[in-house]
Amino acid sequence: MTTPSDRLSALRTHLSATGLDGFVVPLTDEHMSEYVGDYAQRLAWLTGFGGSAGSAVVLATRAAIFTDGRYTIQVREQVSGDDWDYVGVPEESVAGWLAAHAPAGARIGYDPWLHTRAGIEELRAALSPLGVTLVAVAANPIDAVWHDRPAPSPAAMTVQPDALAGVASAAKRADVADWLASEGADAVVVPALDSIAWLFNIRGRDVAHTPVALSYAIVHADGTADVFVAPDKVSPAVREHLGNAVRLHDRQAFAGALLGFAAKKVAIDPSLAVAAIFDGVEAGGGTTLARRDPTITAKACKNPVEIAGHRAASLRDGAAVTRFLRWIADAGPRGGQTELSAAARLLAFREESAALRDLSFDTISATGPNGALPHYHVTEASNRAIARHQLYLIDSGGQYDDGTTDLTRVVPIGTPTQEMRDRYTRVLKGHIALATAVFPHGTTGGQLDALARAPLWQAGLDYAHGTGHGVGSFLSVHEGPARIAKPSYPGAGPSEPLRPGMILSNEPGYYKAGAYGIRIENLLLVVARDLPGGEAEMLAFETLTLAPLDRDLIDTALLTVAEAAWVDAYHARVARELAPALPEDDRTWLTERCAPLPR
Amino acid sequence: MTTPSDRLSALRTHLSATGLDGFVVPLTDEHMSEYVGDYAQRLAWLTGFGGSAGSAVVLATRAAIFTDGRYTIQVREQVSGDDWDYVGVPEESVAGWLAAHAPAGARIGYDPWLHTRAGIEELRAALSPLGVTLVAVAANPIDAVWHDRPAPSPAAMTVQPDALAGVASAAKRADVADWLASEGADAVVVPALDSIAWLFNIRGRDVAHTPVALSYAIVHADGTADVFVAPDKVSPAVREHLGNAVRLHDRQAFAGALLGFAAKKVAIDPSLAVAAIFDGVEAGGGTTLARRDPTITAKACKNPVEIAGHRAASLRDGAAVTRFLRWIADAGPRGGQTELSAAARLLAFREESAALRDLSFDTISATGPNGALPHYHVTEASNRAIARHQLYLIDSGGQYDDGTTDLTRVVPIGTPTQEMRDRYTRVLKGHIALATAVFPHGTTGGQLDALARAPLWQAGLDYAHGTGHGVGSFLSVHEGPARIAKPSYPGAGPSEPLRPGMILSNEPGYYKAGAYGIRIENLLLVVARDLPGGEAEMLAFETLTLAPLDRDLIDTALLTVAEAAWVDAYHARVARELAPALPEDDRTWLTERCAPLPR
Repeated sequence: MTTPSDRLSALRTHLSATGLDGFVVPLTDEHMSEYVGDYAQRLAWLTGFGGSAGSAVVLATRAAIFTDGRYTIQVREQVSGDDWDYVGVPEESVAGWLAAHAPAGARIGYDPWLHTRAGIEELRAALSPLGVTLVAVAANPIDAVWHDRPAPSPAAMTVQPDALAGVASAAKRADVADWLASEGADAVVVPALDSIAWLFNIRGRDVAHTPVALSYAIVHADGTADVFVAPDKVSPAVREHLGNAVRLHDRQAFAGALLGFAAKKVAIDPSLAVAAIFDGVEAGGGTTLARRDPTITAKACKNPVEIAGHRAASLRDGAAVTRFLRWIADAGPRGGQTELSAAARLLAFREESAALRDLSFDTISATGPNGALPHYHVTEASNRAIARHQLYLIDSGGQYDDGTTDLTRVVPIGTPTQEMRDRYTRVLKGHIALATAVFPHGTTGGQLDALARAPLWQAGLDYAHGTGHGVGSFLSVHEGPARIAKPSYPGAGPSEPLRPGMILSNEPGYYKAGAYGIRIENLLLVVARDLPGGEAEMLAFETLTLAPLDRDLIDTALLTVAEAAWVDAYHARVARELAPALPEDDRTWLTERCAPLPR
Repeated sequence: MTTPSDRLSALRTHLSATGLDGFVVPLTDEHMSEYVGDYAQRLAWLTGFGGSAGSAVVLATRAAIFTDGRYTIQVREQVSGDDWDYVGVPEESVAGWLAAHAPAGARIGYDPWLHTRAGIEELRAALSPLGVTLVAVAANPIDAVWHDRPAPSPAAMTVQPDALAGVASAAKRADVADWLASEGADAVVVPALDSIAWLFNIRGRDVAHTPVALSYAIVHADGTADVFVAPDKVSPAVREHLGNAVRLHDRQAFAGALLGFAAKKVAIDPSLAVAAIFDGVEAGGGTTLARRDPTITAKACKNPVEIAGHRAASLRDGAAVTRFLRWIADAGPRGGQTELSAAARLLAFREESAALRDLSFDTISATGPNGALPHYHVTEASNRAIARHQLYLIDSGGQYDDGTTDLTRVVPIGTPTQEMRDRYTRVLKGHIALATAVFPHGTTGGQLDALARAPLWQAGLDYAHGTGHGVGSFLSVHEGPARIAKPSYPGAGPSEPLRPGMILSNEPGYYKAGAYGIRIENLLLVVARDLPGGEAEMLAFETLTLAPLDRDLIDTALLTVAEAAWVDAYHARVARELAPALPEDDRTWLTERCAPLPR
């Protein structure tokens, strides 16, 4: 079975044999993860699509693949139009397509381990008036025909020592137990992999770029917990670290354990838990309480040890990026480099520190028109030569034991145009406005987002992505709950109050289709700030990321005195803090690049 | 029956006789109006409370009055603590107080013509688990014991001619009919008084400061309408204006008319219609559709004729305010003036034009510490002398046939302190940031609010009110649907997109309790703006209000070059446009006050 067409035929044969008229194929795993392991790449296996977001629906004689605007071109290159309809979301929807194409009386299957209840209810509401029935399958039919499906990753769990985590797992579990008492609940089910990693101070290598281990957890009102994980992953050191209050079970035992809550109240996060978890608890006679995962806010608000760790990681990572920036400033204009070779070079600089555990996401190494695609990922097919008169954009980050980094810099290859400098400077003005914002407790990212966009708006420009996302502590590079974005951004992130200790990105941008892309990204720490003469304690940001901005792209005539002073102060700090971590020639280069801007 | 205690006793006797254990008393009318006529001032009659917002609950042996932070002191002065508990909202609630004090099994009455369904459902959800029943009364029990209750105002309806309204009523009704067709509805009930006034191009004098007439309307899918209004209010001219497609009925016939929609679908706005309207349509066999009042958006987006009218009103009003500002600058420091005498003087300047129909709200004339109360209204009891070393704040507006105005200015009596100048200049910086904002279509006031607060936030300061409200066209000075405010502001205003033609206030402030208050308020018009080189049509604001800012309160050292240029350009425009409307000595004074700021 070698082609996607063969796979689609095999799936249809299996569906028909099991009495189904169709099946819905999302791109996620049983943990609603953003990035998923190879074993869960069912959409890619079935269709050939390699993007990071999408879904598909298979009917008896028709099938459709649903992707957003980022993948309009890619999906047509990777997925056969003979077998699949291409459908753009959010303009159209899975529910709308099914409503238009599923025959009345059809039975459409879905895997309850891969959908939230809200997602299924939305589908059901659209389809049931049409006589189309949604059916939860007991086993995923794709797995039945995917004969060489990879096993879940066997990578070992590791301990995140208290010296890096800052708070012992027992103390974190005691807080969850207090929360359970306040909610009148007996237990909470925690399916989110980064929540489990944070709560138990463990890490793993089961998902690319996110150091988590495939597992489930249940925490009880007495502070004890059950963790469900493949036994092979648990070394004696991990078992000792977890202690007697944590009972270990095979991951396969989780579904059965959900049935054991008769007459108990079980808290479950409806945005992070799949429908099967609610179904299981209720089938066993338990009552489910829809509550936010109690680790979400605590995990987002980094403790002093995590903050110190992040500072060390920023310095280490910033030194590697600075060496790379010096290299590309020289090698780029000389020719012979490509997006792939540049990304490899940055990885090599990062690996020199020996502390790098992984990249925190696939590096975006994009030159010229590729930079105008905000979510571009370089492949052999898309790889472009780095050439003069281009802007080169690098957006990347590292996973270190003490922190997760993420930054974006833009470098002109040769002399930039005045338009490029105007746009870069406007993006920089927005970046500075956010970096220097002061705001009351309770303020949300949705309130601050406009500060970063205003200098572009003034010129009739904007960018079609959020301004900032949360970042974990040696965990997910995209971490909830807060976001700095327009209120229309999907999800509740823009309406989440910013709290001291949160780490968020600050990444306004500008994209000229077919020409170039600009994005300036540093990570910010939310800090409390008492101002002399102020009437209330305010919050503010401290920039964590250390790497020079490109001075040749800054048009100082467009900066206010205060903005220029911010750039000079940031550059002075970058030069001072990175100096001890750099070889002398890199230090000399950095010092020149960080000199005060010309007036 | 002369004292509030007597009134409370009489109400309790009546409640007991009708089998009720309590009654809920809101401060509104059958139209959910912000300002209500004397006939509907049941809360004031029962308790003696004279504030603009509040509610009360009466039980057999206990009663409570609910007011917000603005009225904490006033309620204690006006309402007897022997008879009433003082309860602060939103910290506590009517539902919470009733849950704590109503006996199990109690039957609590409410008037379904004075509550929305959502309000009653919220009460019911809190009380029914406690065995407390909410009972809709057929007649308001307060009216039964309020023997000298005023009759509703007999004022005549007037025609708002097409030359001022800009669009004929028939055309507006045709748009509503198109909307009904698109919604699959047969009719829409319109109970909001300003919606009726706008839709039929009529005005009235039944409510203080808002030129509306007590009436209800029902518009049908064929574009015809029924209007329910006291026959005495309708002159032959109004009847002719309304035409044959509008059937007139006595206002008393409205409740009965709701029963006539058997098998029909009737659109009703759940935030503007009282519960009795839904109840009536459903009792008659009709189906209710909860939909936004279809006039809301059209009314908010002023047409070119209304915009031209507003400009004329702004000029006329700004000339009167300018003459007042010159007067107070001279008379204030000389002594002998009070908040009341100053308000009377401004009214006299406005009345000189002969075009003034009413003030658009009770003038806020506040000096010294009274200015620190953002919603202060001067009374004989609160009246303060205007004296040196104070800031004097005047927030007022006029109702003219061609527009509704609202502006706030602050004047130092004598030499202001450096702190006053710092605070005034920060408020001004926020005012300018909002006035000069450019933003994409779809942007909400909740996104822009932070622009106006940022300069105060930078100093650890803020103001505890919204930044801007919608303003009607010879209608309500507080008009929906949009607001510029924090997302936490009550209601959906901050999440409403701003649209071309909307008029909104721009009124950041600063309040130092016990000392002084600062607010700078102009009205803004939302306009489309195409920028050279821009990639999309943007929106921006045009300032409509014309009156000088106080140059002595501006610390130019705190302004950017662009901000100082904005003040100079605004002042030049104020001097130029107001000059023809002013006597020569006022013109000379204004020219001096509008000279470029010192650098």
